[in-house]
Amino acid sequence: MRLAAEPSLDATSYPFAHRLRVRFSETDAMGIVHHASYLPYLEEARVAFLRHVGHPYAEWRRDGLDIAVLECFLRYRRPLRFDDEVDVHLRLALATRTTFQMTYLLTESGDVCATGVTVHGCVRSSGAPSRLPGWLVALAGD
Amino acid sequence: MRLAAEPSLDATSYPFAHRLRVRFSETDAMGIVHHASYLPYLEEARVAFLRHVGHPYAEWRRDGLDIAVLECFLRYRRPLRFDDEVDVHLRLALATRTTFQMTYLLTESGDVCATGVTVHGCVRSSGAPSRLPGWLVALAGD
Amino acid sequence: MRLAAEPSLDATSYPFAHRLRVRFSETDAMGIVHHASYLPYLEEARVAFLRHVGHPYAEWRRDGLDIAVLECFLRYRRPLRFDDEVDVHLRLALATRTTFQMTYLLTESGDVCATGVTVHGCVRSSGAPSRLPGWLVALAGD
Amino acid sequence: MRLAAEPSLDATSYPFAHRLRVRFSETDAMGIVHHASYLPYLEEARVAFLRHVGHPYAEWRRDGLDIAVLECFLRYRRPLRFDDEVDVHLRLALATRTTFQMTYLLTESGDVCATGVTVHGCVRSSGAPSRLPGWLVALAGD
Repeated sequence: MRLAAEPSLDATSYPFAHRLRVRFSETDAMGIVHHASYLPYLEEARVAFLRHVGHPYAEWRRDGLDIAVLECFLRYRRPLRFDDEVDVHLRLALATRTTFQMTYLLTESGDVCATGVTVHGCVRSSGAPSRLPGWLVALAGD
Repeated sequence: MRLAAEPSLDATSYPFAHRLRVRFSETDAMGIVHHASYLPYLEEARVAFLRHVGHPYAEWRRDGLDIAVLECFLRYRRPLRFDDEVDVHLRLALATRTTFQMTYLLTESGDVCATGVTVHGCVRSSGAPSRLPGWLVALAGD
Repeated sequence: MRLAAEPSLDATSYPFAHRLRVRFSETDAMGIVHHASYLPYLEEARVAFLRHVGHPYAEWRRDGLDIAVLECFLRYRRPLRFDDEVDVHLRLALATRTTFQMTYLLTESGDVCATGVTVHGCVRSSGAPSRLPGWLVALAGD
Repeated sequence: MRLAAEPSLDATSYPFAHRLRVRFSETDAMGIVHHASYLPYLEEARVAFLRHVGHPYAEWRRDGLDIAVLECFLRYRRPLRFDDEVDVHLRLALATRTTFQMTYLLTESGDVCATGVTVHGCVRSSGAPSRLPGWLVALAGD
């Protein structure tokens, strides 16, 4: 399994956090947020992180690069509910020349709700894999 | 308002029907299908209809044509629930040279659950509007 | 048709606006925001509006009331794209004892992108219709 | 990590398969199925499997039991595209008294597209965990 990074349960160990609010459309008939709704949360946080470090994803796409999701893992620890304000803590945990891994901790009012990992690669518009940008590899070393 | 077609409540007045089953992910915390989940139902039925009349949408896209949604209308009459089998009845109601309108009736076990209308135009991959294919205009006359 | 309110194209005629940012997950293979993704945008704006006027929707739900969507209408005028910042302007346009209508104008960098109308009723947890709260009816008169 | 089952790449090792067709609304601006759209595919296949073995999920819910998702893992190997017919092969791989794990193989025209694992527990409507039904534990031993 490529997926190797381990998400910490300690929010202070993440260098970046993005806050979002649960939409009603993201809940299900169990009265909680549907488990598939979390992946767009992680994605929204990744996009905010890339903007934060000065490399917005929209710019990547204009340059003909896409960030493909190769793998994902989620552990649901405590349900999220409609209107909850969720902090998605995020860390660029690992990077090789062609893939990188991000870890996530989702908290609500400071309580741990979920953890996750995503594994990514860069692809050209043609679909061909591409090396990662140097700054990204450097950033993972921090 | 461009939207002009009026969806009938009589299932027999629709020439085509597509059956689908409600996913759990499409419900919300009210315990019913979320109102935004209906638009993909109409879309799935349109795609099935185009396949049925011998012009699958995937073929349109290979030909560099997309079907844009210009307007939509939905009336929710009776909630749909998880695992319901829904019949989406569909009619190509109107067509001009550049736009067409479809009407929809959603039933569950024969009961009327919702009605809808969508208005569409054809666009090239460049985004430029395109005339409708002749067969589509002819079909609307039926 | 119950739907009667007409959304204005003039942003200054709306008393409330809510800003959101397009997620990548909300786009489709045409490269633009999928037409079904707009309904959660309107919903998010409604929820923000209710919080703004001091009656958060989460509070309604704790009181055993839900706001059902009875009808919706959308006109797509100009595509939205990934990472766009969208202003959802909103107006409580009409209210009777049992239903209310909201109109919406979506703009991006000041450009009109879409308009919409939603029609709502109040329902108890049992599913039974309920009168609207007095403050809501009063607010629509403004 | 609780997640322990390993999904096979050999379709014949799965006792059950469910076919579905990719919706246009499930694609994204990369022109492929968005990675979050896969979780509802797995869920639809689980629901079909439970119906197949004579214990439909709607019946569980009427009995006051819900199946919670505790963890999920997905590996994306080859993109899915609009209108693809996808076979979701599924296996009840492991069960303890309180949790069970399912493995998944997604194929299109026989080609491996993705693998996945989900970990589940039973919860009462109150949210309290519940033992698994005996038949489910027995089935995992097959």
